[in-house]
Amino acid sequence: MSLERADAPDISEQGLDPHRLFPADATSRKIATELYATVKDLPIVSPHGHTDPRWYAENEAFPDPAQLFIVPDHYVFRMLFSQGIDLSQLGVPRIDGGLSETDSRKIWRTFAENFHLFRATPSRMWLEHSFQEVFGWTKRISAQTADEAYDHIADCLTRPEFRPRALFERFNIEVIATTESPLDDLKWHRQIRDSGWKGRVVTAYRPDAVVDPEFEGFSANVEKFGELAGEDTTSWQGYLNAHRVRRAYFKSFGATSSDHGHATARTENLPAADAEALFQKALKGNCSPEEADAFRGHMLTEMARMSLEDGLVLQIHPGSYRNHSSGIMAAHGRDKGFDIPTQTSYVKALKPLLDAVGLEKDLSIILFTLDETAYSRELAPLAGVYPTLKLGPAWWFYDSPEGMRRYRELTTETAGFYNTVGFNDDTRAFCSIPARHDVARRVDCAYLASLVTSGRLDEDEAYEVAHDLTYRLAKQAYRL
Amino acid sequence: MSLERADAPDISEQGLDPHRLFPADATSRKIATELYATVKDLPIVSPHGHTDPRWYAENEAFPDPAQLFIVPDHYVFRMLFSQGIDLSQLGVPRIDGGLSETDSRKIWRTFAENFHLFRATPSRMWLEHSFQEVFGWTKRISAQTADEAYDHIADCLTRPEFRPRALFERFNIEVIATTESPLDDLKWHRQIRDSGWKGRVVTAYRPDAVVDPEFEGFSANVEKFGELAGEDTTSWQGYLNAHRVRRAYFKSFGATSSDHGHATARTENLPAADAEALFQKALKGNCSPEEADAFRGHMLTEMARMSLEDGLVLQIHPGSYRNHSSGIMAAHGRDKGFDIPTQTSYVKALKPLLDAVGLEKDLSIILFTLDETAYSRELAPLAGVYPTLKLGPAWWFYDSPEGMRRYRELTTETAGFYNTVGFNDDTRAFCSIPARHDVARRVDCAYLASLVTSGRLDEDEAYEVAHDLTYRLAKQAYRL
Amino acid sequence: MSLERADAPDISEQGLDPHRLFPADATSRKIATELYATVKDLPIVSPHGHTDPRWYAENEAFPDPAQLFIVPDHYVFRMLFSQGIDLSQLGVPRIDGGLSETDSRKIWRTFAENFHLFRATPSRMWLEHSFQEVFGWTKRISAQTADEAYDHIADCLTRPEFRPRALFERFNIEVIATTESPLDDLKWHRQIRDSGWKGRVVTAYRPDAVVDPEFEGFSANVEKFGELAGEDTTSWQGYLNAHRVRRAYFKSFGATSSDHGHATARTENLPAADAEALFQKALKGNCSPEEADAFRGHMLTEMARMSLEDGLVLQIHPGSYRNHSSGIMAAHGRDKGFDIPTQTSYVKALKPLLDAVGLEKDLSIILFTLDETAYSRELAPLAGVYPTLKLGPAWWFYDSPEGMRRYRELTTETAGFYNTVGFNDDTRAFCSIPARHDVARRVDCAYLASLVTSGRLDEDEAYEVAHDLTYRLAKQAYRL
Repeated sequence: MSLERADAPDISEQGLDPHRLFPADATSRKIATELYATVKDLPIVSPHGHTDPRWYAENEAFPDPAQLFIVPDHYVFRMLFSQGIDLSQLGVPRIDGGLSETDSRKIWRTFAENFHLFRATPSRMWLEHSFQEVFGWTKRISAQTADEAYDHIADCLTRPEFRPRALFERFNIEVIATTESPLDDLKWHRQIRDSGWKGRVVTAYRPDAVVDPEFEGFSANVEKFGELAGEDTTSWQGYLNAHRVRRAYFKSFGATSSDHGHATARTENLPAADAEALFQKALKGNCSPEEADAFRGHMLTEMARMSLEDGLVLQIHPGSYRNHSSGIMAAHGRDKGFDIPTQTSYVKALKPLLDAVGLEKDLSIILFTLDETAYSRELAPLAGVYPTLKLGPAWWFYDSPEGMRRYRELTTETAGFYNTVGFNDDTRAFCSIPARHDVARRVDCAYLASLVTSGRLDEDEAYEVAHDLTYRLAKQAYRL
Repeated sequence: MSLERADAPDISEQGLDPHRLFPADATSRKIATELYATVKDLPIVSPHGHTDPRWYAENEAFPDPAQLFIVPDHYVFRMLFSQGIDLSQLGVPRIDGGLSETDSRKIWRTFAENFHLFRATPSRMWLEHSFQEVFGWTKRISAQTADEAYDHIADCLTRPEFRPRALFERFNIEVIATTESPLDDLKWHRQIRDSGWKGRVVTAYRPDAVVDPEFEGFSANVEKFGELAGEDTTSWQGYLNAHRVRRAYFKSFGATSSDHGHATARTENLPAADAEALFQKALKGNCSPEEADAFRGHMLTEMARMSLEDGLVLQIHPGSYRNHSSGIMAAHGRDKGFDIPTQTSYVKALKPLLDAVGLEKDLSIILFTLDETAYSRELAPLAGVYPTLKLGPAWWFYDSPEGMRRYRELTTETAGFYNTVGFNDDTRAFCSIPARHDVARRVDCAYLASLVTSGRLDEDEAYEVAHDLTYRLAKQAYRL
Repeated sequence: MSLERADAPDISEQGLDPHRLFPADATSRKIATELYATVKDLPIVSPHGHTDPRWYAENEAFPDPAQLFIVPDHYVFRMLFSQGIDLSQLGVPRIDGGLSETDSRKIWRTFAENFHLFRATPSRMWLEHSFQEVFGWTKRISAQTADEAYDHIADCLTRPEFRPRALFERFNIEVIATTESPLDDLKWHRQIRDSGWKGRVVTAYRPDAVVDPEFEGFSANVEKFGELAGEDTTSWQGYLNAHRVRRAYFKSFGATSSDHGHATARTENLPAADAEALFQKALKGNCSPEEADAFRGHMLTEMARMSLEDGLVLQIHPGSYRNHSSGIMAAHGRDKGFDIPTQTSYVKALKPLLDAVGLEKDLSIILFTLDETAYSRELAPLAGVYPTLKLGPAWWFYDSPEGMRRYRELTTETAGFYNTVGFNDDTRAFCSIPARHDVARRVDCAYLASLVTSGRLDEDEAYEVAHDLTYRLAKQAYRL
């Protein structure tokens, strides 16, 4: 008996299991397989994400495998970092003047040597799906296959059929939303529109930089915001008008939603005078943390009121403790895998907003969470009664087979299927988009199959629901 | 490939799946089927619920399908409301002078047209079970079948075998508890008793109106309470005595339990002088929110002490944020589907009560939760050691197949089966009672079968436990 | 139809199911069985536990079945107590002068008569595994078999092959850690070392008594601590030096870890002057609860800094509300089954420690939780990015089949396998050690099999991971 770890064969060419993520028992597996066959080729509707509109505007080739799969993907580099590999070794840029690896092949080798760390993670599934389905690469990534894989993918990337627009079309994306700040001039969106290309790329209105008094450069941001909007944002009414103007501008580039990433789900519905006073304090940089929080909370209600006017769907993404490590923040800056979920309460937090606009049938608010305990306790009961509220899909760390399964098991019995909104890929990893939608389709079909097998849903209904969850609900909820 | 949602056949006549809610694998399914066969026909013991004693007293026909299934059922109308159907359209009464639909057929049609919203919810399962098993209606409800179903059920309701007492007997109810305020004269219970009918209907003591300083009309309630009890409730001792008197009165109508629905699980064991001072403040309407909360918490300990004297089982149902929407509260009043679960902590909250009476073997306290995170973290560890404590079944939004499964998976390993108390249907929807007990029996048998299949329980024991969970534990825990 | 509970046969001789805890479907079960075959006989690595080093030092016979299995096992006596059996009846010593049962056979009979209470609990599985695998007893424990079982086990205990060292060897324990206070002279460990016996028993440094200002006798403890270390612990630097000295002493007896059992996960990184001031207050017994908490939190950071010097792995075990019942504390003292888990937050709590040392690759901090909601929300995201952090296994009430399954399902997708550390048995119940490790191996193999069946892990990789989880990770994480 050997006490050392067994040697795994280094190369596997078995490829993706066609029945992956389906139930184990034969009856349910057969139903899931048949359900999936009816939805697997439906177009991708991607109503919330972070791909770069510049890709679609310029349609340049992606640089190389490491720049495509490793350097920008926080899921990938955080796992490698957790096992002692410096972010600098992975080519993640530094903001402190330090050096970071620029040899993409070297970065790729480091990744390949540590590929076992991703076992049973969604990253592994997304990566292998991309390698196989996008690039036709089916061997397992390892130290042995690293160079061959790198060369294979790098070669693909030089070819026209791997340019962003070609992939967009091959991925069968019917529409994709990007996310921009009100301070963005949307020039890439303009270039896409002017190019005559038929791919539908829309923006979304993400005003954190001008609604959060604690955002870096808040008052300068608000000043620039006023310039862009042609409004005097030193006054409260001018500031609100500037939102109206920029929202309309974003709508002219296809936006159907706004998006709000606060630390908590707090909302407020302050008297106008109080809101104005907070705004003036915020401009002067004098808000206490509590006042800043109240102002952010109040702005959600203002945004909801504007949504009633202009029809933008309002998305709330609360609960992330951003940039948790001071050391990484100092060396590499924001968004380096150190955003950590926290406990999030919704019931009292949303009451001011819901008392103001919660019964409006023409308003659509989509709630997300990083605290799964809120699914059955708070979010499904709220979305299962308020006509304005819908539940966004399993998000971020929960955008995974187990996370999606828990989401359905914890929300469906109280909120049903029709208070949910289909899938969001929420990604900046372009090649992972088909993989992520495929995981969601498979997990939903597996869940539906289990409902059929256990007599909780008739089989004919399961086909309709599978179609709804894959395609129709996203279009309807996001008004796309 | 069509991008539109598939058309579901509108009529299904397949009826309920006889193996519904059983495990998917053949071995476990067989065991579950055999276990279920031994418990499915056991009498219903319903120790906690909200059916109207007037039904049993007067034994009048139920009015019509909409008044029976839709108008009073908050699970049903909240789901419809969440998708933009006004409560007024569903016949839910208004308190603001507005009109509400009175045409029951029209209400029923609205329900039927939107029946797909209930897919995979427990409401769907309860409704279909009632339609099929109580009324012999097996087609799927839809716009097409709405009128036919309405006529069928309405016709049944005119017949004597669908009167409350006949259904009570047909449902094989051995005993059912209703819930009344100490201010209730129990006249319907008296009428049942005087009628000579043999159905066993008992009351339960629910004193929220006279123990919660924030309850509407608290001091007037306490005054009336004194009159009913023949005690001077302007004094603390008189007030406590009034409880003793009314509890005894309730016991004379079969009560074996009291029930307490506070916003939190807070308990207090205050010095008598402090309790008395709070009581006097409460009578004058001068309690701060904190003082009101402390008083409610203290009254749980007083109730527990009285339970030691008179043997009533004490039930604690904490954690609901009641009447969350101000707009609905103003238009339709209380209890309109807007009670939302909140985070609930038990460990520190229950310590004063448990230090006072927690080791008393003659006292039985049954804990419920709307926060499933407390099952494995707090409730099972508490009930698994304190002799007074037992765990109530999965409650309210969790009275569902997935909710019940999680309940067993999260509590059994620490608290075992014998610190649980069987099933509560907790319903005011009379025709759903057999359906709800059936779901509980099936889910428990499925869970037991999975334990047998995975070698965690011997098969002969599973039969005994199935019987205990279905029948014996409820009778024992509630002293019925 | 009988309404009474069915009679279970009192004696079962079927023994343990060889496929227990494996998945129900044939495909997954086959894979789990094959995986398990490769790890079931691997040596036991037990890096964290509470067995008594005196056993190994003196190698005396264990006294009798009740003293071995019931009196010291809080899992066992808490369940019996929850059903109304006094701790005194179970031989649990009193500290209030009251009498406690001393007749071990009588204690055993009480246990046997109530054996059904343990159905589907891990205690049942551990007990039956010990009875069968250690003592060759395969009948079910009951009133009928009580005496026969007692005699059988008692007879075994008189024989040399049931002495601690013989069992240690038969259990195939490669290394086991005990846990001692810095005030312990480690004389049993010295005796083990001096005996020439080859069994590897190491200690661990558990300084609660000298880092918690609220610990009984804190200032006297610190004084004795100084004497043992030869340092002047009336000064802050002397106190810190005393830790260094005692840690080195513990290392000389094989310690590779320290362990910290605070009520919360709070950490602090105070300026030295502030820490010193708190320390001086603590010595005088003048700390407020908040100050005591801050001091404990700061000491975690000090311990982490010392770990950077001396290489001890730091374990944090937060979240238990200790000795919850005042009545039991007064009658029986500490650690009598009344430690109850509480909500535990990690994200903000750990930030001071992590900002101080969280990016150090040579430091290893192992986090445990009694709040399962933190697994996916906080712990996996933290351990999945900080190189210092690893996740300890499912702990205490969650050291169970369902608890371990949830642990893997809730952590693997974000933290992977390689930020976990294998299994801890964490027990003082010596004969349960093989049972506990066997449960962990089975549950892990079942989980891995389900990953293979659902296409999330290749089969060859599953073998490697099974070996890692069973053996390699514990040795690596604990530097054993």
